[in-house]
Amino acid sequence: MIYETIVSSISDNGVPHVTPFGIRMQDGLVVIAPFKPSTTLSNILSTGHAVVNLTDDVRIFAAPLAGKPIIDLTTASKINGVRLTDLLAHKELKLVKFEDDETRPQLFLEIVHEEQHQPFQGFNRAQAAVIELAVLVSRLKRLPLEKICGEMNYLTIAIEKTAGPKELEAWGWLVEMVENHKAALRSENLA
Amino acid sequence: MIYETIVSSISDNGVPHVTPFGIRMQDGLVVIAPFKPSTTLSNILSTGHAVVNLTDDVRIFAAPLAGKPIIDLTTASKINGVRLTDLLAHKELKLVKFEDDETRPQLFLEIVHEEQHQPFQGFNRAQAAVIELAVLVSRLKRLPLEKICGEMNYLTIAIEKTAGPKELEAWGWLVEMVENHKAALRSENLA
Repeated sequence: MIYETIVSSISDNGVPHVTPFGIRMQDGLVVIAPFKPSTTLSNILSTGHAVVNLTDDVRIFAAPLAGKPIIDLTTASKINGVRLTDLLAHKELKLVKFEDDETRPQLFLEIVHEEQHQPFQGFNRAQAAVIELAVLVSRLKRLPLEKICGEMNYLTIAIEKTAGPKELEAWGWLVEMVENHKAALRSENLA
Repeated sequence: MIYETIVSSISDNGVPHVTPFGIRMQDGLVVIAPFKPSTTLSNILSTGHAVVNLTDDVRIFAAPLAGKPIIDLTTASKINGVRLTDLLAHKELKLVKFEDDETRPQLFLEIVHEEQHQPFQGFNRAQAAVIELAVLVSRLKRLPLEKICGEMNYLTIAIEKTAGPKELEAWGWLVEMVENHKAALRSENLA
């Protein structure tokens, strides 16, 4: 079972890095498997720590893809790291096992501290649609444009029916990424 | 903004009723708009109370559609009502305004008590897919079969990649509903 979360880590020099990650649980440990090269990977290998941030603010998932700097951070409570300031819950982690691999190593992390900040508000279909489009946009150059546009059209229904302002903002950023990609392909074809 | 939640209410005689509802917030009040006739509507009008249950167990969304009795209930803390035993959070509500309508009246409810039980674990694409298929199955007789099957195929990707046992169970129930509907249509066409 894979949960879409936000992983935050810091470099040796204390530079924070915040990025969406699909995580899974295995024997009580959090497992993340970054593709190389990965700032999260090198940060965790050098500090031994990371934070899993559980947020329903889908802008945090779209922002790194769209190059938007909207992320406000706070020092973690028990580990050398940072967390999102505004979030529902977070887990502070310590690296306990590393399985290296040429393309996709696996990091096994123990939960050393957990905090619950705000209650879950229920499923929102627009939030799910933003997550789906974010997954598509992260593979923009590897997927056929037709497939992306078809799925985007389908996802638009949930946006129109159930979105709030944060979902609309994140959705707008991602749609712009698709439109820019479409324009770039068109000018390539004309060249 | 609409959240997909589980609303529980009881009748005058104390018979519980648990059903998925899209709710919205307006000026701090929870607004639900049931289509008539509705057991939730008559329960809230007679007791003046209801509970909004926030759960990430998607089986609770699929169970009422598929006629599966998996729901374990507990007495509410402050109001005359019941809540899910196993859930992330719940809100206990009191009816403060009623706008009647021939087809879809609106109930405005004040939050009189809130409890946070377990932290949000992150977005799971399979949970979102179950919610989407539950929405489709609830409209099984009003939507073209082709549309339902097309969207179900698309949603299957997230199920295969990210589901856990609860998501697979709920998904299985809903797929069976679609298959039964397909078979019923086929025998109608043969008749």
